[in-house]
Amino acid sequence: MDFAKYIRNVPDFPIKGIQFKDITTLLKEKEVFSQAIDYMYAPYRSVDIDKIVGIESRGFIFGTAMSYKLNNGFVPVRKPGKLPADTLSESYQLEYGKDTLEIHTDGIEKGDKVLVVDDLLATGGTAAATCKLVENLGGDIIGVSFLIELTELEGRKLISQYDVQALIKY
Amino acid sequence: MDFAKYIRNVPDFPIKGIQFKDITTLLKEKEVFSQAIDYMYAPYRSVDIDKIVGIESRGFIFGTAMSYKLNNGFVPVRKPGKLPADTLSESYQLEYGKDTLEIHTDGIEKGDKVLVVDDLLATGGTAAATCKLVENLGGDIIGVSFLIELTELEGRKLISQYDVQALIKY
Repeated sequence: MDFAKYIRNVPDFPIKGIQFKDITTLLKEKEVFSQAIDYMYAPYRSVDIDKIVGIESRGFIFGTAMSYKLNNGFVPVRKPGKLPADTLSESYQLEYGKDTLEIHTDGIEKGDKVLVVDDLLATGGTAAATCKLVENLGGDIIGVSFLIELTELEGRKLISQYDVQALIKY
Repeated sequence: MDFAKYIRNVPDFPIKGIQFKDITTLLKEKEVFSQAIDYMYAPYRSVDIDKIVGIESRGFIFGTAMSYKLNNGFVPVRKPGKLPADTLSESYQLEYGKDTLEIHTDGIEKGDKVLVVDDLLATGGTAAATCKLVENLGGDIIGVSFLIELTELEGRKLISQYDVQALIKY
């Protein structure tokens, strides 16, 4: 299936100069979303995974569906102040300024085999920060899975120590 | 399965006086999340549904897994400014102030059979606003499904015209 044709390009969103990849046009199509999940799941078919970590909030969309399919646990990584119990934080650089992500300290146990899932790999900052959170809690990163990769931003370089999968590449 | 025992109560979050129901302790348990989805899915086993509408952001967690299971489309309802294309907005009253939700105008087609999914039914304002958005785009609400219902807040009254399901009741 040509999944890319279901992605809508929105120019100048959220700010001028950005070509935003809108995934809602893929999600709303009967069977297309399910098939995308099946394809994203395929590389891990015979891999032992304890938990999927999904990044707020579009990472929840793909992460939880894969978690359901794999029948394993799901752990959300969120913006600051959203998770109610004890958290670990990780800040990372943006083009202008910085951003912070949080994970519950009891979300990952030592030795947990973890797959990190998000919708889009751009510069890789968000994914790298998430992997660091997981590893700081003693988890082992089995892989990092995206629906979309913007290859020219070379985000893979920032997470080159991991197995990285992406279904759609631009 | 006693799903309620996997929900963590966090007192005074996000503000003093609120007993926050933390679902992350359910999500992270292998098989428990999948079983919760299976139970939430059960009432719709033989119901014709075109799309699931999930409310940002914890509604994405349950909505997308159910959407995968039902093999139908998923449409996100989000906070203002997050959806990149043409949207329809609906504001609703909170205890203090008000809040607004948005949906893509092309997310729902006239006659679409829609199941609305969120994690928690409290006062019902969020769910009622979401149902209004769907109906204003010509969709038919087949039901509204929650993981948790806080029965004493009587949120059901606000969406009494719909079939409402909840897996865990407090």
